[in-house]
Amino acid sequence: MAEGIKIFDSSLRDGAQAKGISFSVKDKIKVVEALDRLGINYVEAGNPGSNSKDMEFFKCMQEKKLMNVQLTAFGSTRRKGISVEEDVNVKSLLLAQTPVVAIFGKSWDFHVTGVIKTTLEENLKMIKDTISFFKMHNKEVVFDAEHFFDGYKANPEYATITLKAAIDGGIDCLALCDTNGGTFPDEIFSITQKIVSDFDVEVGIHCHNDCGMAVANSIMAVKAGATHVQGTFLGFGERCGNANLSTLIPNLQIKRKYRCIDDDSLSKLKETAQYISEVTNMKLESSLPYVGENAFAHKGGMHIDGVTKASHSFEHIEPEKVGNSRKFLMSEVSGKNTIIKKIQNIEPTLTKDSKETEELVDKLKLLEHEGYQFEGAETSFEMIIRKHLKKFKPFFKLIYYRVIEEEPVIDKNCSARAMIKISVDGKEEMTATEGNGPVNALDKAIRKALEVFYPNLKEMYLSDYKVRVLDANSATAAKVRVLIESTDGKHWWTTVGVSGNIIEASMIALVDSIEYKLNKDMEEMNKNNG
Amino acid sequence: MAEGIKIFDSSLRDGAQAKGISFSVKDKIKVVEALDRLGINYVEAGNPGSNSKDMEFFKCMQEKKLMNVQLTAFGSTRRKGISVEEDVNVKSLLLAQTPVVAIFGKSWDFHVTGVIKTTLEENLKMIKDTISFFKMHNKEVVFDAEHFFDGYKANPEYATITLKAAIDGGIDCLALCDTNGGTFPDEIFSITQKIVSDFDVEVGIHCHNDCGMAVANSIMAVKAGATHVQGTFLGFGERCGNANLSTLIPNLQIKRKYRCIDDDSLSKLKETAQYISEVTNMKLESSLPYVGENAFAHKGGMHIDGVTKASHSFEHIEPEKVGNSRKFLMSEVSGKNTIIKKIQNIEPTLTKDSKETEELVDKLKLLEHEGYQFEGAETSFEMIIRKHLKKFKPFFKLIYYRVIEEEPVIDKNCSARAMIKISVDGKEEMTATEGNGPVNALDKAIRKALEVFYPNLKEMYLSDYKVRVLDANSATAAKVRVLIESTDGKHWWTTVGVSGNIIEASMIALVDSIEYKLNKDMEEMNKNNG
Repeated sequence: MAEGIKIFDSSLRDGAQAKGISFSVKDKIKVVEALDRLGINYVEAGNPGSNSKDMEFFKCMQEKKLMNVQLTAFGSTRRKGISVEEDVNVKSLLLAQTPVVAIFGKSWDFHVTGVIKTTLEENLKMIKDTISFFKMHNKEVVFDAEHFFDGYKANPEYATITLKAAIDGGIDCLALCDTNGGTFPDEIFSITQKIVSDFDVEVGIHCHNDCGMAVANSIMAVKAGATHVQGTFLGFGERCGNANLSTLIPNLQIKRKYRCIDDDSLSKLKETAQYISEVTNMKLESSLPYVGENAFAHKGGMHIDGVTKASHSFEHIEPEKVGNSRKFLMSEVSGKNTIIKKIQNIEPTLTKDSKETEELVDKLKLLEHEGYQFEGAETSFEMIIRKHLKKFKPFFKLIYYRVIEEEPVIDKNCSARAMIKISVDGKEEMTATEGNGPVNALDKAIRKALEVFYPNLKEMYLSDYKVRVLDANSATAAKVRVLIESTDGKHWWTTVGVSGNIIEASMIALVDSIEYKLNKDMEEMNKNNG
Repeated sequence: MAEGIKIFDSSLRDGAQAKGISFSVKDKIKVVEALDRLGINYVEAGNPGSNSKDMEFFKCMQEKKLMNVQLTAFGSTRRKGISVEEDVNVKSLLLAQTPVVAIFGKSWDFHVTGVIKTTLEENLKMIKDTISFFKMHNKEVVFDAEHFFDGYKANPEYATITLKAAIDGGIDCLALCDTNGGTFPDEIFSITQKIVSDFDVEVGIHCHNDCGMAVANSIMAVKAGATHVQGTFLGFGERCGNANLSTLIPNLQIKRKYRCIDDDSLSKLKETAQYISEVTNMKLESSLPYVGENAFAHKGGMHIDGVTKASHSFEHIEPEKVGNSRKFLMSEVSGKNTIIKKIQNIEPTLTKDSKETEELVDKLKLLEHEGYQFEGAETSFEMIIRKHLKKFKPFFKLIYYRVIEEEPVIDKNCSARAMIKISVDGKEEMTATEGNGPVNALDKAIRKALEVFYPNLKEMYLSDYKVRVLDANSATAAKVRVLIESTDGKHWWTTVGVSGNIIEASMIALVDSIEYKLNKDMEEMNKNNG
């Protein structure tokens, strides 16, 4: 069997240090669950001592069952001059009730005397005391040796003694940190190799990307014997970010034959990256290795010719291995294989060569060109197929709407008003509602009007609403893509709308969502009656 | 004197293979001139044989004087079965009249027999013939050994013979290419070391980023003896891009003490990166090493404390060396140290312990709790400080607005209408506009009304608009945070607004942005008059 590497994801802790990232408790739970499904070993999810929101998250997690992830709380060694038991932050780590804790401490002598301003001796005690405290409480403990490489270059003897203190405390894994991200791959290799040979304990690596080499540095540490790799799933992190795990995992597993996650799970890599970027609301860079939209996109004619003759002529791996796919940017040879499966769900008699398939591929391309994206909003694509194949009965007609928005407002909670007129089987219904903002007012209005005819819509509500500006440079006239997630308590579905006008984009997604619910209920009813 | 490394920029050739990039002749000239000012040695600027626009560019360049750059045209070896003189592409390379040509040829046996489908022997002749042809025409010639590393791993003997053919042709530099980007740093090191020791000719390196290690791979090649480094200035390129020169240059020059450009020019690195990203119309990633907006941005309280005590505690270099600067991001985790600096910019007499500082810290916390986030929107925070310290003259009063939004629309490009009433020094102005969506309509309306009093607002426009839904789970009634970036052509500033209503949030950010512009212009006028 392949040698295993333990993957330690810190998207929710070190990743949250990136500019523009702030996770809600719900976001955090979603990320943990996605990483758990992928088969990640450790998720470092917050610092309960410094952040009350993190503590709330850890409380929520106590009721959840995870299949693969060992949840990890992060904190510092005890402060100088007090006992471990007196340290409030240390105690809050226990309250988080995680199986694993990661404790960071100083390995660079200058940081001990110049930043936290204590003695070199006291720092060693802080490390040892804190670790043995958690070992006494039966925790698995990872020691993050902060600034280890800078410290080692300045004073190798002291840096090494700090690791010794952690071992004396009973540590499970020594994670060597390149905190400032300034170390080079050859240095990482030789220093890590020395530590691996000096100590009989698991060694890990934690790299930052300030020299653009965090991934390579982690690879060189593994070559030197490290078997625990820390990073953030998409490379987000303070300054230039952390080692990117969505790159490191396939680098290690496909290219170097280590086992990081199940081989089957590798094909979920791209969808996991997309999902996490959605939850984080950070754009997934299209040029990202392995998981980026363009990671296997070919533009040059000669490259396209080469790849057509033999895929490995211009591709370092088969894109399907990581759930990605090949793209030819200038040609029209895309997508049919994916689409035909969705079409056959609705109409099993159609094939790749049917006229309707051709037409739907064209329609999809046109919509993508306009800014639509159906990954994660497949319900909308299903509605397009249904309508195109005439497998859809229209449930209502939207005749007219008007939203009014004004300042000063009469009622602070209802800043917008909407009027709407719909018709169902020739019967018209007009109504009006107030809401907090124009989209909320319209959402309430359309459902109020439709519930007269379709009482089952009362079960349905919107569970998520996301907005992405597509072409930021046209500023307030830019196109937006709206994603709406809906549920009726039994099912969840997501629809999408694109327009230069956020209200119109929202209405497109909203109407799709309502039509889907009505269609689904009708089909279920027919099935039960037939 | 430090050993020199020749930098070879291919932003205009390999960079143009990236999705979304297309250069006009004017764009190309701008990029060459910027790289020339920085002191880059070679700029590979196009393939005159395959692209008529490139030929036009090379004609334009014949009249330009460059200080540092050796302009380079790129093309293939002659085609199989014809003489060099018969090959149209080869001849077009001469017409470009550049001092340097870069010729690519096949080093991987499989590509020779399986892709271009000729014999291994003929391929060697194609390489040698083409290079000796250009040497006869007194060109400096670089040989791009395509797929060299993959070729070497498959058949080291043949890959080496292709280099020998180039040397027999009289080559000046052998550039070893990792065309598919799949090679690892340790492999790059050992293979390059072998080539450097086998041949007495300059060796170069050309890496792609498909494993996220293009920069590290180039560094390892230099360690092995390569003295010519190819890449693209911002890392743009086909698929996952090329080795990023704006990272490699400081890595080599600051960290490894090689000379790539003048030491003085290093401080122009960030501005050059910004300029090239503007010409290219691609966003400069804020997390990019050295030159990104956030490369030296600190968020965690402990990191801010450390950097304040000694900059090297959390920074691998001084940001000024590359023309960048330190930033302290404002967040729940940051605290008084960050805020006091901003307060003192406006009122230098205040200290950490002043009552006003305390009040502003409380205000900041309250606003953050409501969903505000001032990282990247520091202009809004500056306006809060000014207003709190009464260092702000209100320029106008927003009396009333109403936005109307309806479907079916009368005019597809103007789906919303806004009315607005403002007053300036007791004089009222009311107006109305149409726009694409409610925010666009309001943006146009408020500026139309204000330009009556403040014609300098005509210089100002919105350059970016972002929306983030804060609590997605309350769906359409959720709070949104809007970020607006504005510019008057000389300065850029970003403001933020938060509300349950996207229109109100946008108006808050918009009003802040306009007030900032008016205040800035007034201060400048006072300074010039005083």
